[in-house]
Amino acid sequence: MADVSTSMRLKLPVVCFILEIILIILFGALVQYDYETDAKEWHNQSHNDYENDFYFRYPSFQDVHVMIFIGFGFLMTFLQKYGFGSVGFNFLIAAFSLQWATLMQGFFHGMHGGKIHVGVESMINADFCTGSVLISFGAVLGKTSPIQLLTMAMFEVTLFAVNEFILLSLLGTRDAGGSMTIHTFGAYFGLMVTRILYRPHLDKSKHRNSSVYHSDLFAMIGTIYLWMFWPSFNSAITAHGDDQHRTALNTYYSLAACTLATYGMSAVTSHDGKLDMSTSKTLLWPVASPWTAGEMMLTPFGSMIVGFLAGIISVLGFKFLSPILESKLKIQDTCGVHNLHGMPGVLGAIVGAVTAALATMDVYGKGMEDVFPAVADGSIDASKQGGVQALSLAITLGIALLGGLIVVFGTPPDTLCFEDGVYWEVPESEAPHEAQLTTVRTEETEKLSS
Amino acid sequence: MADVSTSMRLKLPVVCFILEIILIILFGALVQYDYETDAKEWHNQSHNDYENDFYFRYPSFQDVHVMIFIGFGFLMTFLQKYGFGSVGFNFLIAAFSLQWATLMQGFFHGMHGGKIHVGVESMINADFCTGSVLISFGAVLGKTSPIQLLTMAMFEVTLFAVNEFILLSLLGTRDAGGSMTIHTFGAYFGLMVTRILYRPHLDKSKHRNSSVYHSDLFAMIGTIYLWMFWPSFNSAITAHGDDQHRTALNTYYSLAACTLATYGMSAVTSHDGKLDMSTSKTLLWPVASPWTAGEMMLTPFGSMIVGFLAGIISVLGFKFLSPILESKLKIQDTCGVHNLHGMPGVLGAIVGAVTAALATMDVYGKGMEDVFPAVADGSIDASKQGGVQALSLAITLGIALLGGLIVVFGTPPDTLCFEDGVYWEVPESEAPHEAQLTTVRTEETEKLSS
Amino acid sequence: MADVSTSMRLKLPVVCFILEIILIILFGALVQYDYETDAKEWHNQSHNDYENDFYFRYPSFQDVHVMIFIGFGFLMTFLQKYGFGSVGFNFLIAAFSLQWATLMQGFFHGMHGGKIHVGVESMINADFCTGSVLISFGAVLGKTSPIQLLTMAMFEVTLFAVNEFILLSLLGTRDAGGSMTIHTFGAYFGLMVTRILYRPHLDKSKHRNSSVYHSDLFAMIGTIYLWMFWPSFNSAITAHGDDQHRTALNTYYSLAACTLATYGMSAVTSHDGKLDMSTSKTLLWPVASPWTAGEMMLTPFGSMIVGFLAGIISVLGFKFLSPILESKLKIQDTCGVHNLHGMPGVLGAIVGAVTAALATMDVYGKGMEDVFPAVADGSIDASKQGGVQALSLAITLGIALLGGLIVVFGTPPDTLCFEDGVYWEVPESEAPHEAQLTTVRTEETEKLSS
Repeated sequence: MADVSTSMRLKLPVVCFILEIILIILFGALVQYDYETDAKEWHNQSHNDYENDFYFRYPSFQDVHVMIFIGFGFLMTFLQKYGFGSVGFNFLIAAFSLQWATLMQGFFHGMHGGKIHVGVESMINADFCTGSVLISFGAVLGKTSPIQLLTMAMFEVTLFAVNEFILLSLLGTRDAGGSMTIHTFGAYFGLMVTRILYRPHLDKSKHRNSSVYHSDLFAMIGTIYLWMFWPSFNSAITAHGDDQHRTALNTYYSLAACTLATYGMSAVTSHDGKLDMSTSKTLLWPVASPWTAGEMMLTPFGSMIVGFLAGIISVLGFKFLSPILESKLKIQDTCGVHNLHGMPGVLGAIVGAVTAALATMDVYGKGMEDVFPAVADGSIDASKQGGVQALSLAITLGIALLGGLIVVFGTPPDTLCFEDGVYWEVPESEAPHEAQLTTVRTEETEKLSS
Repeated sequence: MADVSTSMRLKLPVVCFILEIILIILFGALVQYDYETDAKEWHNQSHNDYENDFYFRYPSFQDVHVMIFIGFGFLMTFLQKYGFGSVGFNFLIAAFSLQWATLMQGFFHGMHGGKIHVGVESMINADFCTGSVLISFGAVLGKTSPIQLLTMAMFEVTLFAVNEFILLSLLGTRDAGGSMTIHTFGAYFGLMVTRILYRPHLDKSKHRNSSVYHSDLFAMIGTIYLWMFWPSFNSAITAHGDDQHRTALNTYYSLAACTLATYGMSAVTSHDGKLDMSTSKTLLWPVASPWTAGEMMLTPFGSMIVGFLAGIISVLGFKFLSPILESKLKIQDTCGVHNLHGMPGVLGAIVGAVTAALATMDVYGKGMEDVFPAVADGSIDASKQGGVQALSLAITLGIALLGGLIVVFGTPPDTLCFEDGVYWEVPESEAPHEAQLTTVRTEETEKLSS
Repeated sequence: MADVSTSMRLKLPVVCFILEIILIILFGALVQYDYETDAKEWHNQSHNDYENDFYFRYPSFQDVHVMIFIGFGFLMTFLQKYGFGSVGFNFLIAAFSLQWATLMQGFFHGMHGGKIHVGVESMINADFCTGSVLISFGAVLGKTSPIQLLTMAMFEVTLFAVNEFILLSLLGTRDAGGSMTIHTFGAYFGLMVTRILYRPHLDKSKHRNSSVYHSDLFAMIGTIYLWMFWPSFNSAITAHGDDQHRTALNTYYSLAACTLATYGMSAVTSHDGKLDMSTSKTLLWPVASPWTAGEMMLTPFGSMIVGFLAGIISVLGFKFLSPILESKLKIQDTCGVHNLHGMPGVLGAIVGAVTAALATMDVYGKGMEDVFPAVADGSIDASKQGGVQALSLAITLGIALLGGLIVVFGTPPDTLCFEDGVYWEVPESEAPHEAQLTTVRTEETEKLSS
C-alpha cells in the first residue's frame, strides 16, 4: 500500500520538473525580446529613453505583482491551519501560470513572424491571467492537492487565453481591469471546479474552516494590498496618457465608496450587529470596482455608484446566496469568490456595456481613438460596441463554466481539508494537530492510493 | 432597554449609507475630470503622453496610499486585543476621509468654473488629509466607536481644508510633506479630542493597553512601511524635476540619522537598558523628518541633524512628557502621537521657517521659482517668507486645538477599551475574553443606551 | 560585577551617538547634491523635467528599499523567539550602513572636485551595499550583539566599496544586480565571520533555532517581497531604456523557473515528501536569479535555465552541504546564506562571464555601448571581457573571506542565542521564557563582564 508521503515525494517533483522543462524548451523555441527590450532593435530606432514602455508601465506592473503574490496569497491565510497552503500554493501556481500564460497569450495574440514577443506589457498580461487562476484557487482553497492545482492552472490559463482572444482580438471588446476576462472568468471557472469536486462530508473538516485572531490579521495584509493596488491593476495596460490616469482615478473613488457600503452592510447583516472579519465574510473589500468601464468617461460619480452597488451585492451574496449555493447547488466556495469576483465581475461588465453604448464624440473627442478605436474610425457605432460588450459577457460565462467541467482529479479526504499538515512540514508547537493528523492517515492513504 | 448590538446594527449602517449617498450626490454635482484625466481635454492639446502628470506622481501616490492603509493601519496593531479595530477602523475612516477631503479641498482651493477638478495630485492631497485624521485616530485609539470616528473625521477634514487654504493659498506658506498642515494639525487636534473624552477610569482596561509578541511584529509592518515611504510622501506633490528628487534625498538621510538616535535613546531610557518595542514606545521610528524643509536646499547634512534631533525629542517625550500629559493634563494619548507627530511636526515647521529665511538666489538660482515663488518674483524677501512660515505654525496650532474641542460624543465604557470584541466578531479561540466581555455587557449597555 | 543591562544601557547609546555624529560631520564636510538634485545646477541647464533621473529610477529605488527593510527584515523572523531582533537589528544596521555606504562608495568612485555627489543613483547604490551587509547578518543571526553588528557593518561596507571599486572602476566588470559585489561578497564575508565566532555549545540554544506556525508566516512576507522585487533590484541601475526593461524581464522569468525547481526539490529532499517551510529550508525562493547577466542578451530562455539550476543547487545545498559546513568546517550559518546567496551568486557570476564572452555586435547592435562599453569602443574583445568577469569573481571571494577574518568581538552566551529577551523588552505573555532567561543571567553576566 503506497504511503501518502511517498506519493507526494515522487509526484510533485516529477510534475514540477517536467512542466518547467517543457516551459523552458518552448521559451527557447518561441520567445523573443520585443523591440523595446532588445538591445539591437531599440538602438536601431531613434528614441528617447523615456519613451520606452518600461517607464509607462513598470511601476504598475510591480503593484500588480504584489497583488498576485502578497494580495491573493495572504488574503487566503484567514484559515487557522492553512496559512502555508494559502501562501505557498498560491506562490507555486502563480509562478507556473505566469510562464504558461506568456506562451498561451503569445500564441493567441502575440505572434510576430512565428515568435512570441515579450516585454513589460506581456508581463502584466501574464500576471493578469495568473490572477484569474488564483480567483479559482479561492473557490477550491483547502480541498485540493498541489498537483491538482497545477493541472487546473494549465487548463484554465489555456482557456483564459482563448476567451481573451475571442473578446479582445476577434470582437474588439474593451475590458480594462478584466471584469469579464479575469474576474468573471476566474470566478465561474472555479465555481464549476469546486462543484465537480463536491465533498458531501466536508463538515468533517468544518472545525478548521474558520479563522483565529492572528490569521485574520494576516488575511488583512492581503486584503488591503489588493484594495490599494486596484487602481494600478485596472490602469496597467490601458492606453498611455489620460487613459491610465483616468482609470486609476475612477477606481480610487469607486473603491472608497464600496468600502462604506461594505461596512454598513456588514453590520446590518451580521448577528448582533458587530462587524465580521472572521472567515471570509468581510474580506470582500478589495474587489468591487467598475473594472470594464474603468478607462471610460464614467466620471467619479458613476464610479462611486458602481462601487457602492458592488459592495452591497457582495455582502448580500455572502449572507443569503452562498448558503443556498452550498445547500442547493452543492457549490462549496471556500473564499466566497462568487461574491467577491463573480457577481461584481458581471456587474462591472454590464456597466461597461451600458457606458460603451452611451459613448459620444462630444464627451470623448479625439480620445475616442484610445478607448473605442472601432467607434472612432466609424466601423461600428457606440450602441453596437455596447452590444459587443454584452455578448462578450455571455461568451465568458459559457467558456468558464464549460471549462471548469474538465478538471477532475483525486483529492485529499474530507477529514483533512484546510490542514497544512497534509502537504507541509509544520512546526512542533502545532504538534497536537500533527498527532491528530496521524490518526486519520490511514483513511487518507486508502483514498489516495485507490 | 436597548441592546448594544441592536444599536450598532442600526446606527453604523445608517451613518455609512447616508454619508456615502451624500458624497455621491456631491460628487455628481461638483466633481469633474481635470484636463489630464479627461479624454477630450487631453487630446485637444498637443502633448506627449509622458508629459501627463500621472507619470510624475503616480508611483509616489501609491507609496502614500500604502502608508495610509498599511502603514497607519498596522502601526496601531500593537495592542494585543485591538488589531481588528486598528486596521479595520483605520480602513473605514480613511475610505470616508479621502472622499470628503476631495470635496473640501476642492471647495477651498480647487474650483474651476464652479467645478472641482480631480487628478493624481488631488488624489495625493486627499490621502494627505486622510493621514492627518489617522494621526488623530492614534491619540484616541481603542476608546471610541466607529461612529465617533466618522464624526471626528468629518469635522477634522473640513478644518484641515480651512487651515490648508489659509496657509497655502492665502499666505503662500511652503509645507512639503506637511509638517504643519498634516502632522502638527493632526496631532494637536487628536490630543484635544482625547482630552475632551478623558476617561478617569481607563485603568480598568489597562491590562489590554499593551502588546503581545506577535502583535508587536504586526505593528512593525506598519512602522517600517511608514518609515520607508516618507521620501515618497514628502516628495509626492513638490515641483517636478530637481524638487521631487531633492525632497526624497533629504528625507532618506534624515530618517537614517533619526533611526540611530532612536535606538540609542531607547536603550538609554528604558529600564535595564533593553530596547523597547512593546507598547508604542519605539514605534516612533517612522516619523522624524524635515518635512517642511524637505524640498528646500537643506543639504543632506542639515537633514540628518534635524532627523537626529527629532529622534531624541521623540524618545524623551515618550519617557518624560507623556506621563505628565496623562497625569497633569488628563491627555490619554494611546499611540503617543504627541511624540510621534506633534513635537517633530513643530520642529519641522521651525526648521522650515529658518531655512526659508536663509534662502538666497546664490544657492537656489532659477530653482527659486519652484521652491519660493513669491521670493523669486520679488514680491517678498526670504526673511519675510520665514516669518510667514512661523506664523503658519501658530495658526495651525490654534485651529487644531480649537477644532478638537468640537467633537464630543458617547463612548464605550472604560472597562471595554482596547477590545475588539465590542465591535467585531472575534474568532472562537479568543472565546475566554468573549466570556469576560459578556459579564461587563450590562454596564456597557446601560451606558450606551443612556 | 557589571550588570548586563547596565552594559547595554551605556554601550549601545554611546556607539549609536558617536557613529551618527561622525556621519553627520563627514556628510557636512564632503557630501553635495548632484546636478539633478541641486536647485541651481538643474535649472542652469536646459532640461525637460521628465529627463531627471528621478523618474527613471525612483520607483525601482523604493522597491529596493522595501527589499532591504521589509524583505530582509521579515525573511529572518522565522525564528520563534527572535522576531524583534530580526526586524529590529536589520533596521538598525541598515540605517547605519546606508549612510556609511554613501561615504565609502562616494570616496572610492563618486568624488567630483573633492565632494561626494548624491542623488537617486547613489541612494540605490547605498541600499545595495546595505543588502550585502544584511546577507552577512543572515549568517550570524541570533548569535551577535547589536554593537557587534554595527562593527561588522562598518568594516564590511568599507571593504564592499573597495571591492566594488576594483571591479567596476578599475576592471570594467559588469555586474547588474550584484552577483559578485553583493551576493557573493556578502555571503562569504558572513560565512567567515560566523566561522570566527564559532560556538561549540550552540546546541544549548537549539530549541530556539526553529520556527512556530505564525513566525513562518511572518517570514513569508519577507520572502515574497524579496522574490517579487528582484526585477527592480537587478534593473535599478542598469542603463536607461532597453537595458532596464530587459533586465527586469530576464529576472521575472528566471525567478518563476526557480520557484518550480525549488518546490520540486523541496518535496524530493524532505523527509516524508512534504514541503518544508519551517526553519530556513525553503525560504530560499527569493534568491536565485541570473544577476550579473541580467542586463545582457541572455534571453528569457537562458534566464530560466539559470533560475532552474539555481533553485536546484540551493535546495541541495540546504540538504547536503550545510550539515557538512557545520560539522566539518564549523560554519554555523543560521539562515543558510551559503545556499541562498553564496552558491547562486557564484553561479550568476559564471553565467555572466560566459554570456559576456559570447557577446557579438550582431546580437547587441548599438546597444553594445550600454552593456559592454569597452567592447563597443574596441578597447577589448568580448572574450577578454569574459575573462575580466571571471577574474572579478576570484577577487571578490578573496576580499570577502579575508575581510571576514577581521571582525571578532564578545558575544552572547551559547545558552541565549536566538532569544529576543536578551536585548529587547518582551511582552508579558512571553513571561515564562523571561523567567527562564533570568535563571541563566548569571552565566551571561559573567561572560559579558569578562
